[in-house]
Amino acid sequence: MPSTAELQLTPDGRLRHFLTTEGLPASLMTEIMDRAAQFLGDTPRDLRKLPLLKGKSIVNLFFENSTRTRTTFEIAAKSLSADVVNLDISTSATAKGESLLDTLKNLEAMGADLFVVRHNQSGAPHFIAQHCTPNLAIVNAGDGLHAHPTQAMLDMFTIRKHKGEFANLKVAIIGDIRHSRVVRSQVHALAGLGCRDIRLVGPGTLLPRQGLAGTLFDQLRPGIEGVDVVICLRLQNERMDAGLLPSEAEFHDSYGMTLDRLAWAAPGAIVMHPGPINRGVELDSALADSERSVILDQVTNGIAIRMAVLSMVMGVKMEALA
Amino acid sequence: MPSTAELQLTPDGRLRHFLTTEGLPASLMTEIMDRAAQFLGDTPRDLRKLPLLKGKSIVNLFFENSTRTRTTFEIAAKSLSADVVNLDISTSATAKGESLLDTLKNLEAMGADLFVVRHNQSGAPHFIAQHCTPNLAIVNAGDGLHAHPTQAMLDMFTIRKHKGEFANLKVAIIGDIRHSRVVRSQVHALAGLGCRDIRLVGPGTLLPRQGLAGTLFDQLRPGIEGVDVVICLRLQNERMDAGLLPSEAEFHDSYGMTLDRLAWAAPGAIVMHPGPINRGVELDSALADSERSVILDQVTNGIAIRMAVLSMVMGVKMEALA
Amino acid sequence: MPSTAELQLTPDGRLRHFLTTEGLPASLMTEIMDRAAQFLGDTPRDLRKLPLLKGKSIVNLFFENSTRTRTTFEIAAKSLSADVVNLDISTSATAKGESLLDTLKNLEAMGADLFVVRHNQSGAPHFIAQHCTPNLAIVNAGDGLHAHPTQAMLDMFTIRKHKGEFANLKVAIIGDIRHSRVVRSQVHALAGLGCRDIRLVGPGTLLPRQGLAGTLFDQLRPGIEGVDVVICLRLQNERMDAGLLPSEAEFHDSYGMTLDRLAWAAPGAIVMHPGPINRGVELDSALADSERSVILDQVTNGIAIRMAVLSMVMGVKMEALA
Repeated sequence: MPSTAELQLTPDGRLRHFLTTEGLPASLMTEIMDRAAQFLGDTPRDLRKLPLLKGKSIVNLFFENSTRTRTTFEIAAKSLSADVVNLDISTSATAKGESLLDTLKNLEAMGADLFVVRHNQSGAPHFIAQHCTPNLAIVNAGDGLHAHPTQAMLDMFTIRKHKGEFANLKVAIIGDIRHSRVVRSQVHALAGLGCRDIRLVGPGTLLPRQGLAGTLFDQLRPGIEGVDVVICLRLQNERMDAGLLPSEAEFHDSYGMTLDRLAWAAPGAIVMHPGPINRGVELDSALADSERSVILDQVTNGIAIRMAVLSMVMGVKMEALA
Repeated sequence: MPSTAELQLTPDGRLRHFLTTEGLPASLMTEIMDRAAQFLGDTPRDLRKLPLLKGKSIVNLFFENSTRTRTTFEIAAKSLSADVVNLDISTSATAKGESLLDTLKNLEAMGADLFVVRHNQSGAPHFIAQHCTPNLAIVNAGDGLHAHPTQAMLDMFTIRKHKGEFANLKVAIIGDIRHSRVVRSQVHALAGLGCRDIRLVGPGTLLPRQGLAGTLFDQLRPGIEGVDVVICLRLQNERMDAGLLPSEAEFHDSYGMTLDRLAWAAPGAIVMHPGPINRGVELDSALADSERSVILDQVTNGIAIRMAVLSMVMGVKMEALA
Repeated sequence: MPSTAELQLTPDGRLRHFLTTEGLPASLMTEIMDRAAQFLGDTPRDLRKLPLLKGKSIVNLFFENSTRTRTTFEIAAKSLSADVVNLDISTSATAKGESLLDTLKNLEAMGADLFVVRHNQSGAPHFIAQHCTPNLAIVNAGDGLHAHPTQAMLDMFTIRKHKGEFANLKVAIIGDIRHSRVVRSQVHALAGLGCRDIRLVGPGTLLPRQGLAGTLFDQLRPGIEGVDVVICLRLQNERMDAGLLPSEAEFHDSYGMTLDRLAWAAPGAIVMHPGPINRGVELDSALADSERSVILDQVTNGIAIRMAVLSMVMGVKMEALA
């Protein structure tokens, strides 16, 4: 059985599916970022549109609801002139008891070229990539606690734009590290791109038990001391309700980022967040709206990264239009 | 803080956002109607399609559900070859506690060119227009009790097609005047276009307390005597349930329009309704389906008006294609 | 009042609406299949895209929820470059008490060219076709217990591809015959194409009481003996809950298809199913995934058939592009 890493590359090393940043060659991550850069326009919020995927059918296959992520993929696909069909599967075929494999085989028989898959079970996109026809490409839009690779790549792209190379970079990630698929994908990408100082910061109950590269900190100040990049995670209310998280006020007291606390980091350190922000919890408004925050850059970069990934797994070269 | 009226015009007097008919220069209302006329085909239900917005991204940002209005904007946008993304926000980001401003900033960072905004709070589109980037245009698709300007403009366009100029026109609007955003926008548009005889007709509890141009009538017959245009409003069941409205039967007895009662109006008077009709309540079927009713014209004109507004706020000239 | 059969043909015998396979001339069914064949690519799951409906507006008007069927029509329409608007009517206008006729008149006033209609009441598409303007075409996507003609035509197309002509063909349909709109459309199509041995197989309570061509069998073995095509229907859980159907296990024991039982049919007999499959109920997995199963072919053929029907009712010739 091929590993996920093997599964997502073609024999000659191009991107075949996009499932995870784990084991993804640095050269491919760089290619994704280089291509994304070409979709950015001249002004800060400007995105270029190119009909690279004209005539291609993309299905947004969301087994787990996420309007925000689905919208970014829909905009990216339409900006490339693809045809897009949104499918919320929780309410249709699966409700009738159809297996994931049957759903997949049915949808691929409808002639789609690419599935963007979101699923609450880890490994579902891998499973689909393993069983789909050679004509179909799979992009992971978040699976269980496993991975959210396009989010990680837009974060890498944002870091690179602001900080340049990764080799001497210090990055802190703060919050519920243990249950975050975003963190797993970020750490794999950072490590793969050569970052050697990755810090994972949060209360002990929310730190990973094993396996993830990075140094653990249960105190904020040593965790962010001297770092170039501070990534705040979103505190999930769902988990708080289950008693797994401290209260919002407690969390903000111990781990909330403020302009004052950012002074502990390196001069010029930037602050990131995957959104949507809980203002006054993970970070306060003065910081979120300051020049040190690159949170809205991340959103724009997210469209560009998804345009890059979608066009790469479809095997389309940028010069196709020239 | 700029007024809504200032906000929706560019310094050189073009339409920048479309938020309200209040204070909108007659010349601009005429330009909207003139442009809409060019989208009408040769036969009654025919609409022309022109790729004026090719490559533009329009987001239908509906914080309040309205399939009917959303569909008209979606059809108008697609008829202009725009890319359209539908976003029902009540179920996504806002549910996670994100502020309206953060939602706005996130969506504009995704590279959209135009937001069509529907919101149950008065002033939300104004607020968004005030805080958005210079690249983005806002069109109000109905906000709270405040305004529904595209509905008002399609009504003006329909009146002009059937009755010509507004100066000597007599118009009666019947129903729940007090709680209607449509009426507010209609009255501002009528007054702005020079109509000097506007009559607002309904039970005393549903008449406005102040501020709206127009003469109040709590009896139907004097209210519509001699008018050229009768606009019936939809009786909202929601309000009836709250005990604010008379029963359907009582309303029909006192204010329901029939072919017989239409004889009180001027010869050739037309009857309008924003839809969907409660047959037998606001007006009876014989009248709704008669030649005096221009209700379906309003629907077709609504697509043309929205095509006009969308293309104008995007700064596209009609000659762009010639 | 015109019959459905008259309603769906133009005076010169072309397809005007597509409402039912009952009374549809064999020449037109053949034309639909011939056209569908031109949309199939060279490899098994490949579908060609042709901009035959560029500039046309198609509304998917679903009064009854069916993500699966809606998706196939959406993909077919987009593959022909039409603009598509999805309308789930149960949650909008009708909920406000608007009549079907008023909904229709409103939507046609918005300038649509074609409605794909799904409704839980038999005859609704016929009613709409009867009352719509001459510019509008109606395609039935399933109405009550009456008809599901595109499903039937994709089945015919699949049979023709695998078995050639219909004259000497033996076909068995197994399951809840009595309550199936699919069966009604299949039987009319098979009979119209010249098939003279149609067998309807199921427990006595689920066999039709009258009127449907075909021989009834309440035992599986004689029902499928020597047939060339076995069509399994989906066992509807909804009906089981109501006590109208045997349990899944009982049904499988008596009527479930297996590779072993398929030996009772003619050599090389194929197995079909409209999907989604209840594995281990209507047929077991070994058969469903064998070479005798053409179930996924049906799905691909379904897109091609819908492309054919949509383009034919719009009066577009295939040579339009040449």
